[in-house]
Amino acid sequence: MKRLAILGSTGSIGQSTLSIVESYPERYSVATLAAGRNLDSAYEQTIRWRPRLVSLATEKLASELASRLRATGITGVEVLWGTAGSVACATHPDVDFVVSAIVGVAGLEATHAAILAGKPVGLANKECMVAAGEILTRDARERGVPLLPIDSEHNAIHQCMRVGTAAEVKQIWLTASGGPFRQTPLEAFANITPEQALKHPTWVMGQRITIDSATMLNKGLEIIEACRLFNLPPSQVRVTVHPQSTVHSLVEYVDGSILAQISVTDMRLPILYALAYPERPASTLTFDLASLSHLDFEPPDFVRFPCLRLAYEAAERGGAHCIALNAADEIAVEAFLAREIPFSGIPRTIEEVLERTPAHHPETIAGVLEADSQARTRAREVISAAVHRV
Amino acid sequence: MKRLAILGSTGSIGQSTLSIVESYPERYSVATLAAGRNLDSAYEQTIRWRPRLVSLATEKLASELASRLRATGITGVEVLWGTAGSVACATHPDVDFVVSAIVGVAGLEATHAAILAGKPVGLANKECMVAAGEILTRDARERGVPLLPIDSEHNAIHQCMRVGTAAEVKQIWLTASGGPFRQTPLEAFANITPEQALKHPTWVMGQRITIDSATMLNKGLEIIEACRLFNLPPSQVRVTVHPQSTVHSLVEYVDGSILAQISVTDMRLPILYALAYPERPASTLTFDLASLSHLDFEPPDFVRFPCLRLAYEAAERGGAHCIALNAADEIAVEAFLAREIPFSGIPRTIEEVLERTPAHHPETIAGVLEADSQARTRAREVISAAVHRV
Repeated sequence: MKRLAILGSTGSIGQSTLSIVESYPERYSVATLAAGRNLDSAYEQTIRWRPRLVSLATEKLASELASRLRATGITGVEVLWGTAGSVACATHPDVDFVVSAIVGVAGLEATHAAILAGKPVGLANKECMVAAGEILTRDARERGVPLLPIDSEHNAIHQCMRVGTAAEVKQIWLTASGGPFRQTPLEAFANITPEQALKHPTWVMGQRITIDSATMLNKGLEIIEACRLFNLPPSQVRVTVHPQSTVHSLVEYVDGSILAQISVTDMRLPILYALAYPERPASTLTFDLASLSHLDFEPPDFVRFPCLRLAYEAAERGGAHCIALNAADEIAVEAFLAREIPFSGIPRTIEEVLERTPAHHPETIAGVLEADSQARTRAREVISAAVHRV
Repeated sequence: MKRLAILGSTGSIGQSTLSIVESYPERYSVATLAAGRNLDSAYEQTIRWRPRLVSLATEKLASELASRLRATGITGVEVLWGTAGSVACATHPDVDFVVSAIVGVAGLEATHAAILAGKPVGLANKECMVAAGEILTRDARERGVPLLPIDSEHNAIHQCMRVGTAAEVKQIWLTASGGPFRQTPLEAFANITPEQALKHPTWVMGQRITIDSATMLNKGLEIIEACRLFNLPPSQVRVTVHPQSTVHSLVEYVDGSILAQISVTDMRLPILYALAYPERPASTLTFDLASLSHLDFEPPDFVRFPCLRLAYEAAERGGAHCIALNAADEIAVEAFLAREIPFSGIPRTIEEVLERTPAHHPETIAGVLEADSQARTRAREVISAAVHRV
């Protein structure tokens, strides 16, 4: 029985993880839950799963949850809040495996704490790896702590990497759906609206990740994540546009063999893989290969999608530049959704912030968060200047 | 340094194996060569590779080769002939690895002898596995002798099987090019000529295997081979038609993940894989994924290609029925090429022979060869009766 800490339990990955626990009660149980601001959902999850410990974003939310639980007659559930709360969830002595699914750098400290406490981590939070991948992988390696990717692409790579050694990998290929603007004429990009950008062809996801998918910055973050997780230079991490999102990624070996992983587009599959590794429990998440008609692949367009180029540049420079790429994008996406900047302003903002970022490799999580904060300030300055220019 | 026995050295797989030895002189050398009737080629290979032992089909050919070698001043090469010669090649004490690439059941005794002698075998001869797979895999398992598939489909399966346990495999998918008549109307099948059937869309191969590809009996043999090699029932071995021959096969796991292997259509790649396993040496056999446009998959047509159905039936019954499937097909293909029977007469002949074959599971190679000979006689009778009916 693996007892789980689910960091980000009320989000999409958190809910999918709980649905896996529900399907495999003989394999998994819930030890701790870290949620954010969704009090109702956190309350329901606590009633259903009776964890030892629950954490919410703020003290106020935590005390509201605690009194609701008291009112319902639930005892034996500790309620905490903030970073200290999510760290406590990640490092609780009853926890055997941590699912890291808090969106953004908010999940960074708890994820790092899990690694320091020797807990195996299933990583669904790509920002953690982008901003602090050098630190997290170093500390995991030193302690022999397994890091299992839950992102569908990196999960596919992890599977395909099992048929050879790391030294036998020539390069890896991340597949990209290409987003909704794969075939949009270049000159139309400036006028793309938030409504258009929020329509993703294959996956239903949160707002930021949907916009990141439209700019392909999301694939850029995955490039950096892959470099860190699999210890590869950016030159060995390639992107191929595959609109069907059926092949989740591929690994090319030095002998010429390429291994690809295919499955339904359902996050429960990579979650189950990460939880059960190295075992593969039977699931009902069947891909009907008999119904497969055809699969398209094409090279990505670095002109339409400058975020891809920026991500490669950041991956090459590492440290503060990866942190700035992620932070500047988050601010720029907010500004785009608030109609302060056009769609094409997202890569422009990121590029300006990267140019203003001095080379720096934080050695600690505190250093990462400091660099993240600086990048956000720079991004706001860049956007504000652009808005005033207009 | 692995010292090789190459059984079938002057054939296509034998030549490709020698080209691998040429490319990796630090890894592989030639210990013994078993050829057939191609004296000139066997002579050249002997001059070039200086094996300890060479074997040809007949005593006459062997003595011609021996005198040519004497005339050239080559000493220290033993020359043998026939089954005893190929068995001596396979079991020579200097041999570390046996490449089994003699076409047809002619290679059976040498392949079996290699296993009994504890030599790891790279299997390019699918008829061996079809006719005697139950015996060969039993004896290999008992002795812990590795059997490494060189057929591109089974090699792909072998690679994809490395990301899980055998118990975690739900089913495997052999890809089929579909042959030249994938889109030919059913009513035109009776009038297909040998010239039409000898044009294969993607692979250049020998005559029988090209016709077998056109009838899809070749895929049928591979179904049986896969059942034996991977210890799977026929219901877990599926076929998908994939005209590009880019995905060489796929393995579907119980959790819903499907792993696929992609590479250039060059037999040197699976040969290198088998020789080097579990290592993967770097090669120049690169597949340009960036150039990949699209991949089609469709279910096979059991009406157009009754050989597929016959193969499943034979696989289900095992033993003498698998032997008869292979033997009857070989005779029927000869008759088709000699214009004695029409294209659609190939499956008709096989079906009649299978119907007349009593259930029987030979326990020895002699028993397999006896059943093979009986099936050939039956096939000739069936064809002769059909010719006289016309």
